[in-house]
Amino acid sequence: MSQPIRVAIVTVSDGVASGARQDRGGPACEEALAASRIPHTVVSRETIADQPDRIEGIVRTLADSGEVDLVVLTGGTGLSPRDRTPEAVRRTLDFEAPGLAERMRAETGRDFPAAYLSRQVAGVRGRTLVLALPGSPKGASDCLRVVADLLPHAIELARGEKPPHPEPAGGQKT
Amino acid sequence: MSQPIRVAIVTVSDGVASGARQDRGGPACEEALAASRIPHTVVSRETIADQPDRIEGIVRTLADSGEVDLVVLTGGTGLSPRDRTPEAVRRTLDFEAPGLAERMRAETGRDFPAAYLSRQVAGVRGRTLVLALPGSPKGASDCLRVVADLLPHAIELARGEKPPHPEPAGGQKT
Amino acid sequence: MSQPIRVAIVTVSDGVASGARQDRGGPACEEALAASRIPHTVVSRETIADQPDRIEGIVRTLADSGEVDLVVLTGGTGLSPRDRTPEAVRRTLDFEAPGLAERMRAETGRDFPAAYLSRQVAGVRGRTLVLALPGSPKGASDCLRVVADLLPHAIELARGEKPPHPEPAGGQKT
Repeated sequence: MSQPIRVAIVTVSDGVASGARQDRGGPACEEALAASRIPHTVVSRETIADQPDRIEGIVRTLADSGEVDLVVLTGGTGLSPRDRTPEAVRRTLDFEAPGLAERMRAETGRDFPAAYLSRQVAGVRGRTLVLALPGSPKGASDCLRVVADLLPHAIELARGEKPPHPEPAGGQKT
Repeated sequence: MSQPIRVAIVTVSDGVASGARQDRGGPACEEALAASRIPHTVVSRETIADQPDRIEGIVRTLADSGEVDLVVLTGGTGLSPRDRTPEAVRRTLDFEAPGLAERMRAETGRDFPAAYLSRQVAGVRGRTLVLALPGSPKGASDCLRVVADLLPHAIELARGEKPPHPEPAGGQKT
Repeated sequence: MSQPIRVAIVTVSDGVASGARQDRGGPACEEALAASRIPHTVVSRETIADQPDRIEGIVRTLADSGEVDLVVLTGGTGLSPRDRTPEAVRRTLDFEAPGLAERMRAETGRDFPAAYLSRQVAGVRGRTLVLALPGSPKGASDCLRVVADLLPHAIELARGEKPPHPEPAGGQKT
Protein backbone atom coordinates (compact mmCIF):
# COMPACT_ATOMS: atom_id res chain seq x y z
CA MET A 1 0.00 0.00 0.00
CA SER A 2 1.76 3.06 -1.26
CA GLN A 3 -0.41 5.71 0.32
CA PRO A 4 -1.13 6.20 4.02
CA ILE A 5 -4.62 5.07 5.03
CA ARG A 6 -7.04 7.97 5.16
CA VAL A 7 -9.06 7.63 8.36
CA ALA A 8 -12.28 9.32 9.41
CA ILE A 9 -13.19 9.11 13.09
CA VAL A 10 -16.78 9.50 14.19
CA THR A 11 -17.74 9.72 17.85
CA VAL A 12 -21.33 8.62 18.39
CA SER A 13 -22.62 9.96 21.69
CA ASP A 14 -25.60 12.00 22.80
CA GLY A 15 -23.56 13.36 25.69
CA VAL A 16 -20.62 14.45 23.61
CA ALA A 17 -22.79 15.82 20.81
CA SER A 18 -24.73 17.97 23.29
CA GLY A 19 -21.56 19.23 24.90
CA ALA A 20 -22.36 17.60 28.26
CA ARG A 21 -19.40 15.25 28.05
CA GLN A 22 -15.92 15.41 26.70
CA ASP A 23 -15.06 13.21 23.72
CA ARG A 24 -12.72 10.53 24.95
CA GLY A 25 -13.52 7.74 22.49
CA GLY A 26 -12.40 9.61 19.39
CA PRO A 27 -9.01 10.61 20.79
CA ALA A 28 -8.53 7.06 22.11
CA CYS A 29 -8.99 5.74 18.57
CA GLU A 30 -6.46 8.22 17.26
CA GLU A 31 -3.96 7.20 19.91
CA ALA A 32 -4.44 3.52 19.19
CA LEU A 33 -3.85 4.09 15.49
CA ALA A 34 -0.80 6.24 16.25
CA ALA A 35 0.58 3.50 18.48
CA SER A 36 0.18 0.97 15.68
CA ARG A 37 2.72 0.97 12.91
CA ILE A 38 0.14 1.63 10.26
CA PRO A 39 0.91 4.56 7.95
CA HIS A 40 -2.21 6.67 8.13
CA THR A 41 -3.56 10.15 8.30
CA VAL A 42 -6.69 11.27 10.11
CA VAL A 43 -8.65 13.26 7.55
CA SER A 44 -11.84 13.88 9.49
CA ARG A 45 -13.15 14.01 13.05
CA GLU A 46 -16.83 14.31 13.79
CA THR A 47 -19.23 13.89 16.66
CA ILE A 48 -22.88 12.99 16.27
CA ALA A 49 -25.76 12.04 18.54
CA ASP A 50 -27.05 8.45 18.82
CA GLN A 51 -29.53 8.95 16.00
CA PRO A 52 -29.64 6.13 13.47
CA ASP A 53 -30.37 8.42 10.53
CA ARG A 54 -27.47 10.67 11.37
CA ILE A 55 -25.12 7.72 11.81
CA GLU A 56 -26.23 6.18 8.55
CA GLY A 57 -25.87 9.47 6.73
CA ILE A 58 -22.39 10.23 7.94
CA VAL A 59 -21.06 6.80 7.03
CA ARG A 60 -22.51 7.07 3.54
CA THR A 61 -21.11 10.56 3.06
CA LEU A 62 -17.64 9.64 4.24
CA ALA A 63 -17.44 6.37 2.33
CA ASP A 64 -18.81 7.86 -0.87
CA SER A 65 -16.50 10.88 -0.79
CA GLY A 66 -13.65 8.89 -2.29
CA GLU A 67 -11.39 10.49 0.26
CA VAL A 68 -11.66 8.02 3.13
CA ASP A 69 -10.30 4.47 3.30
CA LEU A 70 -11.36 3.68 6.84
CA VAL A 71 -14.28 4.97 8.89
CA VAL A 72 -13.95 4.30 12.60
CA LEU A 73 -17.03 4.91 14.70
CA THR A 74 -16.88 4.80 18.48
CA GLY A 75 -20.03 4.53 20.57
CA GLY A 76 -23.52 3.08 20.47
CA THR A 77 -22.60 -0.60 20.28
CA GLY A 78 -23.99 -1.63 23.67
CA LEU A 79 -27.33 -3.14 24.65
CA SER A 80 -29.12 -0.06 25.92
CA PRO A 81 -32.15 1.41 24.17
CA ARG A 82 -30.12 4.30 22.72
CA ASP A 83 -27.42 2.03 21.30
CA ARG A 84 -28.31 1.75 17.65
CA THR A 85 -25.00 2.21 15.87
CA PRO A 86 -24.71 -1.39 14.61
CA GLU A 87 -28.07 -1.36 12.85
CA ALA A 88 -27.43 2.06 11.33
CA VAL A 89 -23.97 1.12 10.11
CA ARG A 90 -25.17 -2.21 8.78
CA ARG A 91 -27.67 -0.50 6.50
CA THR A 92 -24.82 1.30 4.77
CA LEU A 93 -22.65 -1.74 4.11
CA ASP A 94 -22.27 -3.72 0.92
CA PHE A 95 -21.23 -6.63 3.10
CA GLU A 96 -19.98 -7.41 6.58
CA ALA A 97 -16.62 -8.89 7.50
CA PRO A 98 -17.77 -10.77 10.59
CA GLY A 99 -14.36 -12.15 11.48
CA LEU A 100 -13.05 -8.75 12.50
CA ALA A 101 -15.86 -8.26 15.01
CA GLU A 102 -15.56 -11.85 16.22
CA ARG A 103 -11.85 -11.37 16.79
CA MET A 104 -12.36 -8.13 18.68
CA ARG A 105 -14.82 -9.78 21.05
CA ALA A 106 -12.79 -12.96 21.50
CA GLU A 107 -9.55 -11.08 22.22
CA THR A 108 -10.87 -8.25 24.38
CA GLY A 109 -13.28 -10.59 26.13
CA ARG A 110 -10.53 -12.81 27.41
CA ASP A 111 -9.55 -10.36 30.15
CA PHE A 112 -12.79 -8.44 30.28
CA PRO A 113 -15.79 -10.74 29.73
CA ALA A 114 -18.24 -7.83 29.47
CA ALA A 115 -16.62 -7.10 26.12
CA TYR A 116 -18.76 -9.96 24.78
CA LEU A 117 -21.75 -7.65 25.16
CA SER A 118 -20.33 -5.24 22.59
CA ARG A 119 -21.94 -5.34 19.19
CA GLN A 120 -19.01 -4.34 17.03
CA VAL A 121 -19.57 -4.30 13.30
CA ALA A 122 -17.01 -4.42 10.51
CA GLY A 123 -17.76 -4.24 6.83
CA VAL A 124 -17.22 -2.62 3.49
CA ARG A 125 -19.11 0.11 1.69
CA GLY A 126 -17.80 0.71 -1.81
CA ARG A 127 -14.05 0.76 -1.33
CA THR A 128 -14.11 1.90 2.28
CA LEU A 129 -13.72 -0.26 5.36
CA VAL A 130 -16.07 0.65 8.22
CA LEU A 131 -15.57 -0.32 11.86
CA ALA A 132 -18.10 0.34 14.62
CA LEU A 133 -16.37 0.13 18.00
CA PRO A 134 -17.46 0.53 21.62
CA GLY A 135 -17.77 4.00 23.07
CA SER A 136 -15.43 3.64 25.98
CA PRO A 137 -11.88 4.81 25.34
CA LYS A 138 -10.39 1.54 26.50
CA GLY A 139 -12.95 -0.57 24.64
CA ALA A 140 -12.41 1.29 21.39
CA SER A 141 -8.63 1.35 21.54
CA ASP A 142 -8.40 -2.31 22.58
CA CYS A 143 -10.56 -3.30 19.63
CA LEU A 144 -8.49 -1.25 17.21
CA ARG A 145 -5.31 -2.77 18.54
CA VAL A 146 -6.69 -6.28 18.00
CA VAL A 147 -7.32 -5.71 14.30
CA ALA A 148 -4.67 -3.08 13.51
CA ASP A 149 -2.33 -5.48 11.76
CA LEU A 150 -5.11 -6.60 9.45
CA LEU A 151 -6.26 -3.15 8.38
CA PRO A 152 -3.79 -2.36 5.58
CA HIS A 153 -4.46 -5.68 3.87
CA ALA A 154 -8.21 -5.38 4.42
CA ILE A 155 -8.27 -1.92 2.89
CA GLU A 156 -6.23 -3.00 -0.11
CA LEU A 157 -8.68 -5.80 -0.72
CA ALA A 158 -11.65 -3.46 -0.36
CA ARG A 159 -10.04 -1.06 -2.83
CA GLY A 160 -9.77 -3.90 -5.33
CA GLU A 161 -5.97 -3.73 -5.33
CA LYS A 162 -3.76 -6.75 -5.53
CA PRO A 163 -2.41 -7.79 -2.15
CA PRO A 164 1.23 -6.74 -1.98
CA HIS A 165 2.51 -9.70 -0.03
CA PRO A 166 3.43 -12.45 -2.45
CA GLU A 167 1.24 -15.49 -2.16
CA PRO A 168 3.43 -18.49 -1.51
CA ALA A 169 2.63 -21.77 -3.13
CA GLY A 170 -0.43 -22.90 -1.24
CA GLY A 171 -0.50 -19.64 0.68
CA GLN A 172 -3.80 -18.63 2.15
CA LYS A 173 -5.74 -15.99 0.35
CA THR A 174 -8.74 -14.57 2.10
CA MET B 1 -29.33 -4.20 40.18
CA SER B 2 -31.73 -3.86 43.06
CA GLN B 3 -34.33 -6.40 41.99
CA PRO B 4 -33.82 -10.08 41.24
CA ILE B 5 -33.93 -10.90 37.55
CA ARG B 6 -37.35 -12.11 36.48
CA VAL B 7 -36.86 -15.16 34.27
CA ALA B 8 -39.27 -16.90 31.92
CA ILE B 9 -38.28 -20.35 30.73
CA VAL B 10 -39.69 -21.76 27.50
CA THR B 11 -39.08 -25.33 26.43
CA VAL B 12 -39.41 -25.71 22.66
CA SER B 13 -40.02 -29.35 21.78
CA ASP B 14 -42.60 -31.24 19.79
CA GLY B 15 -42.02 -34.28 21.97
CA VAL B 16 -42.44 -32.47 25.26
CA ALA B 17 -45.40 -30.42 24.05
CA SER B 18 -47.21 -33.58 22.96
CA GLY B 19 -46.52 -35.33 26.23
CA ALA B 20 -44.35 -37.99 24.60
CA ARG B 21 -41.21 -36.85 26.37
CA GLN B 22 -40.39 -35.40 29.72
CA ASP B 23 -39.11 -31.83 29.85
CA ARG B 24 -35.48 -31.97 30.84
CA GLY B 25 -34.19 -28.80 29.16
CA GLY B 26 -36.35 -26.41 31.17
CA PRO B 27 -35.37 -27.86 34.56
CA ALA B 28 -31.72 -27.91 33.47
CA CYS B 29 -31.91 -24.17 32.78
CA GLU B 30 -33.45 -23.57 36.19
CA GLU B 31 -30.72 -25.58 37.87
CA ALA B 32 -27.98 -23.74 35.99
CA LEU B 33 -29.43 -20.41 37.05
CA ALA B 34 -29.79 -21.61 40.64
CA ALA B 35 -26.17 -22.75 40.64
CA SER B 36 -25.06 -19.32 39.47
CA ARG B 37 -24.92 -16.54 42.00
CA ILE B 38 -27.39 -14.41 40.09
CA PRO B 39 -30.32 -13.15 42.16
CA HIS B 40 -33.33 -14.19 40.13
CA THR B 41 -36.82 -15.55 40.28
CA VAL B 42 -38.45 -17.83 37.72
CA VAL B 43 -41.77 -16.18 36.95
CA SER B 44 -42.96 -18.41 34.13
CA ARG B 45 -42.47 -21.90 32.70
CA GLU B 46 -43.97 -22.93 29.41
CA THR B 47 -43.66 -25.67 26.83
CA ILE B 48 -44.46 -25.24 23.16
CA ALA B 49 -44.06 -27.25 19.97
CA ASP B 50 -41.43 -26.43 17.35
CA GLN B 51 -43.76 -24.07 15.51
CA PRO B 52 -42.20 -20.78 14.45
CA ASP B 53 -45.40 -18.78 14.94
CA ARG B 54 -45.86 -20.14 18.42
CA ILE B 55 -42.26 -19.45 19.36
CA GLU B 56 -42.44 -15.95 17.97
CA GLY B 57 -45.70 -15.26 19.77
CA ILE B 58 -44.57 -16.42 23.15
CA VAL B 59 -41.37 -14.37 23.06
CA ARG B 60 -43.31 -11.26 22.10
CA THR B 61 -45.89 -11.83 24.82
CA LEU B 62 -43.33 -12.44 27.53
CA ALA B 63 -41.05 -9.57 26.56
CA ASP B 64 -43.91 -7.11 26.14
CA SER B 65 -45.54 -8.02 29.46
CA GLY B 66 -43.18 -5.77 31.37
CA GLU B 67 -42.83 -8.57 33.89
CA VAL B 68 -39.91 -10.50 32.45
CA ASP B 69 -36.26 -9.43 32.24
CA LEU B 70 -34.89 -12.58 30.69
CA VAL B 71 -36.51 -15.12 28.38
CA VAL B 72 -34.60 -18.39 28.15
CA LEU B 73 -35.69 -20.76 25.41
CA THR B 74 -34.30 -24.29 25.20
CA GLY B 75 -34.67 -26.37 22.06
CA GLY B 76 -34.86 -26.04 18.30
CA THR B 77 -31.40 -24.59 17.67
CA GLY B 78 -30.00 -27.53 15.74
CA LEU B 79 -29.73 -28.18 12.02
CA SER B 80 -32.69 -30.47 11.51
CA PRO B 81 -35.72 -29.49 9.47
CA ARG B 82 -37.84 -28.94 12.57
CA ASP B 83 -35.27 -26.71 14.26
CA ARG B 84 -36.55 -23.23 13.61
CA THR B 85 -36.19 -21.48 16.95
CA PRO B 86 -33.38 -19.10 15.87
CA GLU B 87 -35.33 -17.66 12.95
CA ALA B 88 -38.50 -17.31 15.01
CA VAL B 89 -36.70 -15.63 17.90
CA ARG B 90 -34.75 -13.36 15.57
CA ARG B 91 -37.96 -11.95 14.15
CA THR B 92 -38.91 -10.70 17.62
CA LEU B 93 -35.64 -8.96 18.42
CA ASP B 94 -34.81 -5.28 18.22
CA PHE B 95 -31.21 -6.33 17.84
CA GLU B 96 -28.92 -9.29 18.41
CA ALA B 97 -26.00 -9.46 20.81
CA PRO B 98 -23.85 -11.84 18.79
CA GLY B 99 -21.02 -12.02 21.28
CA LEU B 100 -23.09 -14.01 23.75
CA ALA B 101 -23.81 -16.72 21.19
CA GLU B 102 -20.22 -16.67 19.93
CA ARG B 103 -18.97 -17.11 23.48
CA MET B 104 -21.36 -19.99 24.16
CA ARG B 105 -20.15 -21.84 21.07
CA ALA B 106 -16.47 -21.11 21.64
CA GLU B 107 -16.56 -22.20 25.27
CA THR B 108 -18.82 -25.23 25.06
CA GLY B 109 -17.21 -26.27 21.76
CA ARG B 110 -13.80 -26.59 23.31
CA ASP B 111 -14.63 -29.91 24.97
CA PHE B 112 -17.51 -30.84 22.75
CA PRO B 113 -16.94 -29.78 19.13
CA ALA B 114 -20.50 -30.64 18.07
CA ALA B 115 -21.55 -27.61 20.11
CA TYR B 116 -20.40 -25.56 17.13
CA LEU B 117 -23.45 -26.86 15.28
CA SER B 118 -25.78 -25.13 17.73
CA ARG B 119 -27.42 -21.99 16.47
CA GLN B 120 -27.81 -20.09 19.71
CA VAL B 121 -29.26 -16.62 19.51
CA ALA B 122 -29.03 -13.78 22.01
CA GLY B 123 -30.66 -10.42 21.68
CA VAL B 124 -32.91 -7.74 23.08
CA ARG B 125 -36.59 -7.04 22.58
CA GLY B 126 -37.69 -3.86 24.28
CA ARG B 127 -36.05 -4.09 27.69
CA THR B 128 -35.91 -7.87 27.82
CA LEU B 129 -32.92 -10.07 27.07
CA VAL B 130 -33.73 -13.20 25.08
CA LEU B 131 -31.53 -16.30 24.87
CA ALA B 132 -32.22 -19.28 22.60
CA LEU B 133 -30.26 -22.28 23.84
CA PRO B 134 -29.88 -25.91 22.72
CA GLY B 135 -32.50 -28.42 23.72
CA SER B 136 -30.31 -30.90 25.49
CA PRO B 137 -30.10 -30.46 29.24
CA LYS B 138 -26.33 -30.37 29.23
CA GLY B 139 -26.13 -28.10 26.20
CA ALA B 140 -28.57 -25.62 27.67
CA SER B 141 -27.04 -25.54 31.13
CA ASP B 142 -23.48 -25.30 29.81
CA CYS B 143 -24.46 -22.35 27.65
CA LEU B 144 -26.17 -20.59 30.54
CA ARG B 145 -23.16 -21.15 32.74
CA VAL B 146 -20.87 -19.60 30.14
CA VAL B 147 -22.80 -16.33 30.06
CA ALA B 148 -24.25 -16.27 33.59
CA ASP B 149 -21.81 -13.69 34.90
CA LEU B 150 -22.70 -11.32 32.10
CA LEU B 151 -26.46 -11.52 32.50
CA PRO B 152 -27.05 -8.97 35.29
CA HIS B 153 -25.03 -6.32 33.49
CA ALA B 154 -26.60 -7.17 30.13
CA ILE B 155 -30.08 -6.84 31.58
CA GLU B 156 -29.32 -3.53 33.25
CA LEU B 157 -28.10 -2.20 29.94
CA ALA B 158 -31.17 -3.49 28.14
CA ARG B 159 -33.36 -1.82 30.76
CA GLY B 160 -31.62 1.46 30.08
CA GLU B 161 -30.25 1.64 33.61
CA LYS B 162 -26.82 2.90 34.46
CA PRO B 163 -24.31 0.11 35.03
CA PRO B 164 -23.72 -0.20 38.79
CA HIS B 165 -20.05 -1.03 38.59
CA PRO B 166 -18.08 2.19 38.53
CA GLU B 167 -16.23 2.80 35.29
CA PRO B 168 -12.57 3.31 36.05
CA ALA B 169 -10.60 5.89 34.16
CA GLY B 170 -10.28 4.33 30.75
CA GLY B 171 -12.50 1.47 31.83
CA GLN B 172 -14.22 -0.43 29.07
CA LYS B 173 -17.82 0.29 28.43
CA THR B 174 -19.69 -2.06 26.16
CA MET C 1 -24.64 -42.60 8.55
CA SER C 2 -24.89 -45.60 6.31
CA GLN C 3 -24.14 -43.93 2.97
CA PRO C 4 -21.02 -41.98 2.02
CA ILE C 5 -21.57 -38.24 1.88
CA ARG C 6 -22.23 -37.03 -1.67
CA VAL C 7 -20.14 -33.94 -2.22
CA ALA C 8 -20.35 -31.30 -4.96
CA ILE C 9 -17.38 -29.00 -5.33
CA VAL C 10 -17.78 -25.59 -6.93
CA THR C 11 -14.81 -23.38 -7.72
CA VAL C 12 -15.82 -19.72 -7.88
CA SER C 13 -13.24 -17.73 -9.80
CA ASP C 14 -13.27 -15.40 -12.77
CA GLY C 15 -9.73 -16.44 -13.61
CA VAL C 16 -10.40 -20.15 -13.55
CA ALA C 17 -13.73 -19.85 -15.34
CA SER C 18 -12.10 -17.90 -18.17
CA GLY C 19 -9.29 -20.38 -18.45
CA ALA C 20 -6.63 -17.85 -17.41
CA ARG C 21 -5.81 -19.70 -14.23
CA GLN C 22 -5.63 -23.29 -13.16
CA ASP C 23 -8.15 -24.48 -10.59
CA ARG C 24 -6.26 -25.13 -7.40
CA GLY C 25 -9.00 -24.50 -4.83
CA GLY C 26 -11.25 -27.31 -5.99
CA PRO C 27 -8.55 -30.00 -5.95
CA ALA C 28 -7.39 -28.73 -2.55
CA CYS C 29 -10.89 -29.31 -1.19
CA GLU C 30 -10.91 -32.81 -2.62
CA GLU C 31 -7.56 -33.58 -1.05
CA ALA C 32 -8.65 -32.23 2.33
CA LEU C 33 -11.75 -34.42 2.25
CA ALA C 34 -9.70 -37.43 1.16
CA ALA C 35 -7.29 -36.83 4.03
CA SER C 36 -10.17 -36.77 6.51
CA ARG C 37 -11.69 -40.04 7.57
CA ILE C 38 -15.11 -39.11 6.28
CA PRO C 39 -16.71 -41.63 3.93
CA HIS C 40 -17.66 -39.57 0.92
CA THR C 41 -17.84 -39.47 -2.82
CA VAL C 42 -17.36 -36.44 -5.04
CA VAL C 43 -20.35 -36.45 -7.35
CA SER C 44 -19.81 -33.13 -9.11
CA ARG C 45 -17.07 -30.62 -9.94
CA GLU C 46 -17.87 -27.26 -11.46
CA THR C 47 -16.22 -23.93 -12.06
CA ILE C 48 -18.09 -20.65 -12.36
CA ALA C 49 -17.21 -16.97 -12.53
CA ASP C 50 -17.73 -14.60 -9.59
CA GLN C 51 -21.26 -13.76 -10.65
CA PRO C 52 -23.80 -13.74 -7.83
CA ASP C 53 -26.65 -15.04 -9.99
CA ARG C 54 -24.55 -17.92 -11.23
CA ILE C 55 -23.41 -18.80 -7.73
CA GLU C 56 -26.94 -18.66 -6.40
CA GLY C 57 -28.23 -20.75 -9.25
CA ILE C 58 -25.71 -23.51 -8.94
CA VAL C 59 -26.22 -23.89 -5.20
CA ARG C 60 -29.97 -24.12 -5.65
CA THR C 61 -29.63 -26.66 -8.46
CA LEU C 62 -27.20 -28.86 -6.57
CA ALA C 63 -29.08 -28.72 -3.28
CA ASP C 64 -32.45 -29.31 -4.86
CA SER C 65 -31.27 -32.25 -6.98
CA GLY C 66 -31.64 -34.64 -4.07
CA GLU C 67 -28.29 -36.09 -5.05
CA VAL C 68 -25.93 -33.91 -3.04
CA ASP C 69 -25.46 -33.85 0.73
CA LEU C 70 -22.70 -31.28 0.87
CA VAL C 71 -21.91 -28.38 -1.44
CA VAL C 72 -18.43 -26.99 -0.98
CA LEU C 73 -17.70 -23.69 -2.71
CA THR C 74 -14.19 -22.27 -2.84
CA GLY C 75 -13.57 -18.65 -3.75
CA GLY C 76 -15.15 -15.23 -3.52
CA THR C 77 -15.20 -14.88 0.27
CA GLY C 78 -12.73 -12.01 0.54
CA LEU C 79 -13.26 -8.27 0.81
CA SER C 80 -12.63 -7.23 -2.77
CA PRO C 81 -15.34 -5.81 -5.01
CA ARG C 82 -15.67 -9.06 -6.95
CA ASP C 83 -16.02 -11.20 -3.83
CA ARG C 84 -19.73 -11.81 -3.58
CA THR C 85 -20.01 -15.51 -2.81
CA PRO C 86 -21.27 -15.08 0.78
CA GLU C 87 -24.22 -12.91 -0.20
CA ALA C 88 -25.14 -15.17 -3.11
CA VAL C 89 -24.93 -18.32 -1.01
CA ARG C 90 -26.83 -16.74 1.85
CA ARG C 91 -29.80 -16.05 -0.40
CA THR C 92 -30.12 -19.79 -1.05
CA LEU C 93 -30.03 -20.93 2.57
CA ASP C 94 -32.93 -21.87 4.81
CA PHE C 95 -30.70 -20.96 7.72
CA GLU C 96 -27.07 -20.39 8.58
CA ALA C 97 -24.99 -22.43 11.00
CA PRO C 98 -22.74 -19.59 12.18
CA GLY C 99 -20.66 -21.72 14.50
CA LEU C 100 -18.99 -23.54 11.63
CA ALA C 101 -17.78 -20.27 10.07
CA GLU C 102 -16.78 -18.91 13.48
CA ARG C 103 -14.76 -22.00 14.16
CA MET C 104 -13.02 -21.86 10.79
CA ARG C 105 -11.95 -18.28 11.39
CA ALA C 106 -10.91 -18.81 15.01
CA GLU C 107 -8.86 -21.90 14.22
CA THR C 108 -7.24 -20.84 10.96
CA GLY C 109 -6.76 -17.29 12.26
CA ARG C 110 -4.61 -18.43 15.14
CA ASP C 111 -1.57 -18.99 12.93
CA PHE C 112 -2.62 -16.77 10.07
CA PRO C 113 -4.47 -13.66 11.30
CA ALA C 114 -5.51 -12.61 7.79
CA ALA C 115 -7.86 -15.59 7.88
CA TYR C 116 -10.13 -13.36 9.98
CA LEU C 117 -10.83 -11.39 6.82
CA SER C 118 -12.45 -14.41 5.19
CA ARG C 119 -16.21 -14.34 5.04
CA GLN C 120 -16.96 -18.04 5.19
CA VAL C 121 -20.58 -19.07 5.26
CA ALA C 122 -22.13 -22.34 6.42
CA GLY C 123 -25.78 -23.22 6.29
CA VAL C 124 -28.51 -25.53 5.19
CA ARG C 125 -30.74 -25.53 2.14
CA GLY C 126 -33.35 -28.22 2.28
CA ARG C 127 -31.41 -31.27 3.38
CA THR C 128 -28.08 -30.15 2.02
CA LEU C 129 -25.25 -28.55 3.95
CA VAL C 130 -23.51 -25.71 2.12
CA LEU C 131 -20.05 -24.37 2.91
CA ALA C 132 -18.49 -21.32 1.27
CA LEU C 133 -14.72 -21.37 1.77
CA PRO C 134 -11.84 -19.12 0.76
CA GLY C 135 -10.42 -19.41 -2.71
CA SER C 136 -6.83 -20.13 -1.83
CA PRO C 137 -5.91 -23.82 -1.76
CA LYS C 138 -4.48 -23.59 1.72
CA GLY C 139 -7.33 -21.45 3.03
CA ALA C 140 -9.96 -23.81 1.69
CA SER C 141 -8.31 -27.00 2.84
CA ASP C 142 -7.50 -25.61 6.30
CA CYS C 143 -11.13 -24.60 6.76
CA LEU C 144 -12.38 -28.01 5.66
CA ARG C 145 -10.00 -29.72 8.03
CA VAL C 146 -11.25 -27.61 10.93
CA VAL C 147 -14.85 -28.72 10.48
CA ALA C 148 -14.35 -32.17 8.92
CA ASP C 149 -15.16 -34.09 12.07
CA LEU C 150 -18.46 -32.27 12.40
CA LEU C 151 -19.67 -32.82 8.86
CA PRO C 152 -21.18 -36.31 9.11
CA HIS C 153 -23.24 -35.35 12.16
CA ALA C 154 -24.23 -32.01 10.64
CA ILE C 155 -25.43 -33.69 7.47
CA GLU C 156 -27.41 -36.28 9.36
CA LEU C 157 -29.13 -33.51 11.27
CA ALA C 158 -29.85 -31.58 8.08
CA ARG C 159 -31.30 -34.73 6.55
CA GLY C 160 -33.66 -35.03 9.49
CA GLU C 161 -32.15 -38.34 10.53
CA LYS C 162 -31.65 -39.33 14.12
CA PRO C 163 -28.10 -38.83 15.27
CA PRO C 164 -26.42 -42.23 15.43
CA HIS C 165 -24.31 -41.59 18.48
CA PRO C 166 -26.30 -42.45 21.58
CA GLU C 167 -27.06 -39.47 23.75
CA PRO C 168 -25.76 -40.16 27.24
CA ALA C 169 -27.75 -39.02 30.23
CA GLY C 170 -27.32 -35.29 30.15
CA GLY C 171 -25.41 -35.55 26.89
CA GLN C 172 -25.34 -32.46 24.76
CA LYS C 173 -27.58 -32.35 21.79
CA THR C 174 -27.10 -29.56 19.35
